[in-house]
Amino acid sequence: MNLLLLEPADHVAGDRVVLRDRRLRHLREVHEAEVGQTLRVGQLGGLMGEGRLLRLDEQEAELEISLDQPPPAKLPLTLLLALPRPKMLRRVLQTVAAMGVPRLVLLNSYRVEKSFWQTPFLEPAAIREQLVLGLEQARDTLLPEVIIEKRFKPFVEDRLPALAAGSLGLTGHPGDHPPCPRALSEPVTLAIGPEGGWIPYEVEKLAAAGLAPVQLGERILRVETAVPALLARLF
Amino acid sequence: MNLLLLEPADHVAGDRVVLRDRRLRHLREVHEAEVGQTLRVGQLGGLMGEGRLLRLDEQEAELEISLDQPPPAKLPLTLLLALPRPKMLRRVLQTVAAMGVPRLVLLNSYRVEKSFWQTPFLEPAAIREQLVLGLEQARDTLLPEVIIEKRFKPFVEDRLPALAAGSLGLTGHPGDHPPCPRALSEPVTLAIGPEGGWIPYEVEKLAAAGLAPVQLGERILRVETAVPALLARLF
Repeated sequence: MNLLLLEPADHVAGDRVVLRDRRLRHLREVHEAEVGQTLRVGQLGGLMGEGRLLRLDEQEAELEISLDQPPPAKLPLTLLLALPRPKMLRRVLQTVAAMGVPRLVLLNSYRVEKSFWQTPFLEPAAIREQLVLGLEQARDTLLPEVIIEKRFKPFVEDRLPALAAGSLGLTGHPGDHPPCPRALSEPVTLAIGPEGGWIPYEVEKLAAAGLAPVQLGERILRVETAVPALLARLF
Repeated sequence: MNLLLLEPADHVAGDRVVLRDRRLRHLREVHEAEVGQTLRVGQLGGLMGEGRLLRLDEQEAELEISLDQPPPAKLPLTLLLALPRPKMLRRVLQTVAAMGVPRLVLLNSYRVEKSFWQTPFLEPAAIREQLVLGLEQARDTLLPEVIIEKRFKPFVEDRLPALAAGSLGLTGHPGDHPPCPRALSEPVTLAIGPEGGWIPYEVEKLAAAGLAPVQLGERILRVETAVPALLARLF
């Protein structure tokens, strides 16, 4: 936790917050924080700054805060991701938030196991929990938007063209394709497939919606490795 | 497992192998492989090719193999990594092998907890197990070399200058440094710090050994995210 992320309910006055949950435990057990100490804080959805610890006991931490810095810029990216298996989903959500992806679409694909859609980690509160961990890690305050699309064809045919309009559309896919471009500053819509990859039909449908296949070399990477690798290459 | 990795002990004849371990279970349970099917195989430390499944039962799988392709090229990189916490170490070893790092140095740092050095995941067999999983994922056959350096100062002062000779030396470190360079083809020696980062003394010592600090933006990434991000940016 490199940033103490504050929510509206934490405020007891304009510049005072009281924490009682896992953040209190983290302050006590990991940071071993002491009264008088200054910590980096950020208002969820708002500014970042500093918080001075006024009081810390087993029940509560109280801080006086001063917020004056904007969060870091987001990437100009919409990321489409074939729904990963539940355990990987949690880590990928953290990575997506940490790397500054503003919009994530979790999408079905032929090679996504049907059972993956049943995971409790897709509940809005569970998604939010992982995104918050990613923001705390990277020092950001703005939650990414997460869109869930359980049907590939209607999404790719009917909604993706509008979503990707005005951006460079790319599909990460191993094979005889152009290499993934580097150091872009323009908006990008990027689709990353499931373990085992997109099937040819899906690559065709994504291409028809404007997302051209690009490759990242011969090596097949796990989704949680491919996401940071592709993002660091693109921007 | 995108590649069935074969070891010398698997061979019952020049072009025949018999498998009995987790690879057998994987073939049966994940691949749901059937006799006659052709699978991608590779000889650990050697060539890659195809294997035809001759026989498959609860005890054994027998394959006829034909190996004629070289493994993919490694990156021209020596990666120095402050020892991550044990759970993360396992995933990072897989990532390092999957991305084609030929040489990894696991290094002490002020912010590496002493207890991390006690983990059984540092046993040679445990390291090898994770590296093999990474090779199987990425379709490679060449194990990276892993060097363990429990003392920062003697390593950085006495051995690092020779290890890094003839390469571009870089230390990933947040702050007011030049950005991490892109698309290199020359050899690189890259040092990535622990959670919480290198301390200033360590950044100075690494710089004195020829590894200049570079940054990857304002966002603080977990080690398992920073590794693929830096590698994809560099090469």
